[in-house]
Amino acid sequence: MTDAKPIIVLKHPQLGENIGMVARAMLNFGLTELRLVKPREEWPNDKALSTASGAIEVIENTKVYETLNEAVHDVHMVYGTTARSRDMVNIIHSPATAAHDIQEQHNTGKKTAIVFGAERTGLENDDIALCNALITYPTNPDFSSLNLAQAVLLMSYELMRSENEASDIKLKKGNNTPFATRAEFDNFLNRLYDDLEDKGFFKTEKMKPVMKQNIESMLVRMQMTEQELNTLHGIIAAMKRY
Amino acid sequence: MTDAKPIIVLKHPQLGENIGMVARAMLNFGLTELRLVKPREEWPNDKALSTASGAIEVIENTKVYETLNEAVHDVHMVYGTTARSRDMVNIIHSPATAAHDIQEQHNTGKKTAIVFGAERTGLENDDIALCNALITYPTNPDFSSLNLAQAVLLMSYELMRSENEASDIKLKKGNNTPFATRAEFDNFLNRLYDDLEDKGFFKTEKMKPVMKQNIESMLVRMQMTEQELNTLHGIIAAMKRY
Repeated sequence: MTDAKPIIVLKHPQLGENIGMVARAMLNFGLTELRLVKPREEWPNDKALSTASGAIEVIENTKVYETLNEAVHDVHMVYGTTARSRDMVNIIHSPATAAHDIQEQHNTGKKTAIVFGAERTGLENDDIALCNALITYPTNPDFSSLNLAQAVLLMSYELMRSENEASDIKLKKGNNTPFATRAEFDNFLNRLYDDLEDKGFFKTEKMKPVMKQNIESMLVRMQMTEQELNTLHGIIAAMKRY
Repeated sequence: MTDAKPIIVLKHPQLGENIGMVARAMLNFGLTELRLVKPREEWPNDKALSTASGAIEVIENTKVYETLNEAVHDVHMVYGTTARSRDMVNIIHSPATAAHDIQEQHNTGKKTAIVFGAERTGLENDDIALCNALITYPTNPDFSSLNLAQAVLLMSYELMRSENEASDIKLKKGNNTPFATRAEFDNFLNRLYDDLEDKGFFKTEKMKPVMKQNIESMLVRMQMTEQELNTLHGIIAAMKRY
């Protein structure tokens, strides 16, 4: 694994605001290199700075080019993003498979770029032809239009996600307090059963084992900390008070 | 597999624009049910309609509630989204593992909701205590603030992504008993708190909110069936007997 990241290229972005929001979305997931091909508005751009909400390093290092070819001159693998499928034969990735592919490219020392077209029109066929592979998003077919920053956000997210996947732990606990041991849990459970016995909770002897199973099965799911177990002891003690 | 989808709940959203962008992000990935808890601006809201960019069906069906508890009254599993980790013990998901978990909940017939806090402040501790599980985003630690619509977008994307992945997930045969709804759980919780109050369990007024949060946070993890909730009612009733 390398810590290389793809370059984000915006071709003919229309609004400075959108460029700023793209910069923010990139930095949210650790991407920093942005290139623009002939933005419609002047660059540097105050509106971009403002919507970047602090992603200043991205905005300040943004480079501007005349053509898409120039913008990717030092890149080995160019990925184009597109909503519609095209007639041209091309490798078509989902954001997820693209993220994996990009990582593999980086692992072999290649430099990558992901290209996004203008807000309304997307990439043109000429741009598509330049791309080594395409990326399409699995959106709702009846309502598929993502805005530019959102499209960049999802790709940036996928890249960080695929980096993290190896260390993705399914369930984590939110704090450091120690968990109750089984013995501590059993201790609570037995005291509870004794109390319930005293209070006539178990209506018949025959039902008792099943009722106990149900109680245990429900309580064990809590995966309690020691502190929480103490709270439960406290609740039971309080209820018995008169 | 079912085609059930989670409900998106926004607690105290500040700006109509953001609500509209959330609706758009939802519909991009096929989510349609939006609920608001006390939005700051009036509802229906023209700015929301305008930024929804055509996601009219989501906006028109949006329901407004006074409290978070009311907004999730018919829900079985509530997921809270949070940027910071909290002291309360909780199940913490990434968007990816949350999406899988939500799908499994739907496969067992449960109804789910994902809750997002206000734009700047996020969810409060009281809200967190209500949640069965939390979701945090794997953002750049040095630049982690996602806007509201982007946070909803990423979760919605993950849900569609995991559905596409999950054609191999088998339908899980659920336990036949129905799960308790949030309203039924609240009913139990409120009766428990009343009893604890009577019995002098809360030592000081100052500690009471935190103690309640801890109790709720621990009990909510059980994800009880109606029958189990009845058992708990029975246990408390038995303990009070003398």
